[in-house]
Amino acid sequence: MFNSIAIIGAGALGGYYGARFAQHGHNVHLLLRSDYEHVRRQGLRVRSVSGDFALAPEQVHVHNDPATMPKVDLVIVTLKSTENHQFPQLITPLLHENTAILTLQNGLGNEDDLARLFGAHRVLGGIAFVCINRVAPGELQHTEAGFIRLGEFGSDTGRSTRAKDIVDMFNRSNVTAHVIDGPVRAARWAKLVWNIPFNGLGALLDATTEDLLADDEGTQLVRDIMFETLAAAAADGIVLPREMPDQQIAATRGMGAYRTSTQIDRQTGKPMEIEAIFGRPRAVAQRANMPVPLLQFLHVSLTHLNRAIKR
Amino acid sequence: MFNSIAIIGAGALGGYYGARFAQHGHNVHLLLRSDYEHVRRQGLRVRSVSGDFALAPEQVHVHNDPATMPKVDLVIVTLKSTENHQFPQLITPLLHENTAILTLQNGLGNEDDLARLFGAHRVLGGIAFVCINRVAPGELQHTEAGFIRLGEFGSDTGRSTRAKDIVDMFNRSNVTAHVIDGPVRAARWAKLVWNIPFNGLGALLDATTEDLLADDEGTQLVRDIMFETLAAAAADGIVLPREMPDQQIAATRGMGAYRTSTQIDRQTGKPMEIEAIFGRPRAVAQRANMPVPLLQFLHVSLTHLNRAIKR
Repeated sequence: MFNSIAIIGAGALGGYYGARFAQHGHNVHLLLRSDYEHVRRQGLRVRSVSGDFALAPEQVHVHNDPATMPKVDLVIVTLKSTENHQFPQLITPLLHENTAILTLQNGLGNEDDLARLFGAHRVLGGIAFVCINRVAPGELQHTEAGFIRLGEFGSDTGRSTRAKDIVDMFNRSNVTAHVIDGPVRAARWAKLVWNIPFNGLGALLDATTEDLLADDEGTQLVRDIMFETLAAAAADGIVLPREMPDQQIAATRGMGAYRTSTQIDRQTGKPMEIEAIFGRPRAVAQRANMPVPLLQFLHVSLTHLNRAIKR
Repeated sequence: MFNSIAIIGAGALGGYYGARFAQHGHNVHLLLRSDYEHVRRQGLRVRSVSGDFALAPEQVHVHNDPATMPKVDLVIVTLKSTENHQFPQLITPLLHENTAILTLQNGLGNEDDLARLFGAHRVLGGIAFVCINRVAPGELQHTEAGFIRLGEFGSDTGRSTRAKDIVDMFNRSNVTAHVIDGPVRAARWAKLVWNIPFNGLGALLDATTEDLLADDEGTQLVRDIMFETLAAAAADGIVLPREMPDQQIAATRGMGAYRTSTQIDRQTGKPMEIEAIFGRPRAVAQRANMPVPLLQFLHVSLTHLNRAIKR
């Protein structure tokens, strides 16, 4: 059981899940950056396909410094993976002996980063298939209900009592969640099959999911990138179903004109999550001598654009 | 011998060669669009690594309508390939029985378009390896001397008396030119080895040649696209030397921070030359079942961006 929860990097995703926990009576502490002042004074507003709601300032604990946060039973990490170098200072103050750490970040390698610092026994990995955007300070829009899959990092099956407890807590808070039946890394790759084309092309071309699937040529490029990601996963020992690309494309058509976080980062001049989503998967494939020309193209191009953003 | 020359689409490239011909006493007629009024009133100014010069308005015949142009002995086509549908109205009025037509346009298929309309016997193809930018109305900057290779379209060798005469005329006008020793199509592909990566990535990433070659990752992507273009050429029956990519990369480093025409088109919101440089080479490769994933990526991406420009 988790009597207290901290959400580290409560942007769109973390803010939404944190708000759902708070709405359902959990003791939640959000670590915010840019929206801190706004949420502290005015609370959070959520427009959601699962039901709109708002949290008054007194219904949610917000922080802009981990030093003001208590030690908690569960840390949920929704920080941008570009900020993983901040893990020691952000997470260390929140840990007691049995604190579990669940990362819902995008891409490969986040569990490894956490395990290296805090011990693999603490770490769970989760993948959020969902559409949530921050539309204004303290205001979130949840347009695709989606679901979370999570499991133990240091396990071939992902299962544990702890994982089951977290899943139950999500489900009781109006967020669909399942325990992964298999290694977390397989679920990560399944999400990358979506993220690599849609976040990659979306940022490179400033295109929504709908733009990218608007004609046969765009759809075929998305599909080709997805199959290349399947090959990269296979090179990493993860065999994903051949039907996955077409299933994901069909599901994406139902999302409407969704802007990925990477497209939004580029539009708003913020650093894009390049390494976790593109660089690490590419490195894994290349170490296994699996050619990934489309992923290479995306990675090199986005790195180039990211450098321009950081200038 | 060519007593009169018309240059159709006298932008940076056509304007420069036309100005060199006029400077050396040839009877040249330039068909201009956006710079017509300026050049008619103030002439042309050229800053050139081969020597600066200016042409007063009375030293050059400028037109904005082919109806005002005489029939000529040689038509040089430097129109953007996106405007090839205008060939009938722009070129027909200029032709007498023996008029030759030389296209210096980028990409594949321009000679075919001309031959279909005006007869293959009239057509020569030429490739300009050169750096010329229009820096202001009527003002050209020629930063890399370069050279022209040209030859007969309907010939395996490219050679003819006519081709030799044109080459001599260029050389006497301070423009280095050679007759191609081989089919024009081989020279076209050799130029595409350069255009596909530099025009493609340059436009997609808003990057100069120097930006693209600034690190190992960018250089490797350029090289990979070049080798893919070699494979596409081979699928079209054209075997290019394996040393060509590295030679071209080395030569490009000497050009400094060059902006390709396609990058400039995107920056200035003008339609990019997608089909001639990317679409037709891709179609040739795909008909021969040669996989060209990087070219596909470029073609689909640039088509997407071009659509946004045309909106």
